[in-house]
Amino acid sequence: VASPVLVNGEASASVPALDRGLAFGDGVFRTLLVRGGRALNWDRHFRRLAHDCGALGLPVPREEMLRAEIARVAPEAAIVKVIVTRGVSGRGYSFPTDLTPTRVVAAFPPPEYPPELARDGIRVRTCELRLSEQPRLAGVKTLNRLENVLARGEWFDASIREGLLCDRENRLVEGTFSNVFLGFGATLVTPELTRCGVAGAQRDRIRDLATSAGIACDVRDVPFAELAEADEVFVANSLIGLWPVIAHGARTWPVGPLTRRFQALLEADDAQGR
Amino acid sequence: VASPVLVNGEASASVPALDRGLAFGDGVFRTLLVRGGRALNWDRHFRRLAHDCGALGLPVPREEMLRAEIARVAPEAAIVKVIVTRGVSGRGYSFPTDLTPTRVVAAFPPPEYPPELARDGIRVRTCELRLSEQPRLAGVKTLNRLENVLARGEWFDASIREGLLCDRENRLVEGTFSNVFLGFGATLVTPELTRCGVAGAQRDRIRDLATSAGIACDVRDVPFAELAEADEVFVANSLIGLWPVIAHGARTWPVGPLTRRFQALLEADDAQGR
Repeated sequence: VASPVLVNGEASASVPALDRGLAFGDGVFRTLLVRGGRALNWDRHFRRLAHDCGALGLPVPREEMLRAEIARVAPEAAIVKVIVTRGVSGRGYSFPTDLTPTRVVAAFPPPEYPPELARDGIRVRTCELRLSEQPRLAGVKTLNRLENVLARGEWFDASIREGLLCDRENRLVEGTFSNVFLGFGATLVTPELTRCGVAGAQRDRIRDLATSAGIACDVRDVPFAELAEADEVFVANSLIGLWPVIAHGARTWPVGPLTRRFQALLEADDAQGR
Repeated sequence: VASPVLVNGEASASVPALDRGLAFGDGVFRTLLVRGGRALNWDRHFRRLAHDCGALGLPVPREEMLRAEIARVAPEAAIVKVIVTRGVSGRGYSFPTDLTPTRVVAAFPPPEYPPELARDGIRVRTCELRLSEQPRLAGVKTLNRLENVLARGEWFDASIREGLLCDRENRLVEGTFSNVFLGFGATLVTPELTRCGVAGAQRDRIRDLATSAGIACDVRDVPFAELAEADEVFVANSLIGLWPVIAHGARTWPVGPLTRRFQALLEADDAQGR
């Protein structure tokens, strides 16, 4: 039986109490899906992880080592979370340049989302919390995720599956655990993530798939009011795949043709083991 | 020999790898000084900890238990860091309401700052990073401290002891590890922390000491330009005490009378074991 958690390659259920990941959230993470022993969308996950490590000045884990560790914790099907922190240091914010990063690779049971979510779509709400703007960290999946925790804690109505997040200028940015896409006719739009938000590997993939399919996918600022004007809406991440959004308050949408198109494109991509 | 780290009251060098403190920075902390077996400024530290737990919806640790744990790790003189996280949960941002928080109480060697810093003052710079504004977390000492880490990483000149942080509207907010005070004549001013920043227990104490001494201490927005106009400047936290600021770029200040007054007031307060 594989260990569910590896810390720096060793089976372990714990990290050092003085790790900077705990002390300051000084690190980054990714969450991905393993199916049939394959880490789906791996290239983009690793590229994002490398980018995010770079944003914090962390050394990037060797790709082959990471792949091997993921295979150890998730030989078949699982959700895998990869965390890279700056490691253990003294008490203050400053740190020596020669720290050894802490690497956590943890497996969780595969997701069991009811299939009707992807088929029939979900209801969403808008969160009251406004995302703060920090260009130095925008797009980066850091361990500083209290805004997501607070936003996700705003509602308990299980029939609402996701909360949309805006910045203080009332621009639509993302969902609490997903990226958001709007369809206007034959064009897809997803918010720019240069001030806040997390750029998911699934978002990267959808943008690449759009390019390959000759579908325009504009990445730009999206005033929240545009949501109501969209012909179709969906949210996406590496675990849920792609969920159509069919209602926000009184506004409802059909499950649109772009939504179905990208569901099919993602499925085909997964089937090819990418 | 006392254990240097207690996790939930047990001597331990580690925390669960799946703790939400690591995963999301879902927790708060305080750093305080123990001298002669006494946790200095304890009442305000505990009040802040309780307030900050409340801001995240975390149960507040029992005060007597915390005091006992601090005494165990720091029977004589030490820096003590107290961390409270939401505990271990599944993978997502949402969490059940019945989680058991994780409590870390760790001792570090007492600070050894050169005495001339408090006596002669320090040079400071302004950080390029601008603090993001999140009213829901402003003032709260959460485990989401990447902005401080990045800001502290901006300079390596050891002759500059602290970096000042502004928000995007160019208001002075704090130092990377301290709160900042400006003296204008007989009046003290310290920035409002309702949009960003961390409210230190030492800042609370200085405000209380000002009240007791009949010295006005205004808490308000401080445009960065006011720094140059101040008659005197100092930074403070629980570990450094109070350091006069004597230079920022070409602008220099004498060590002013309010600065010396509050150094004396703090010393007297410490001596009385408060």
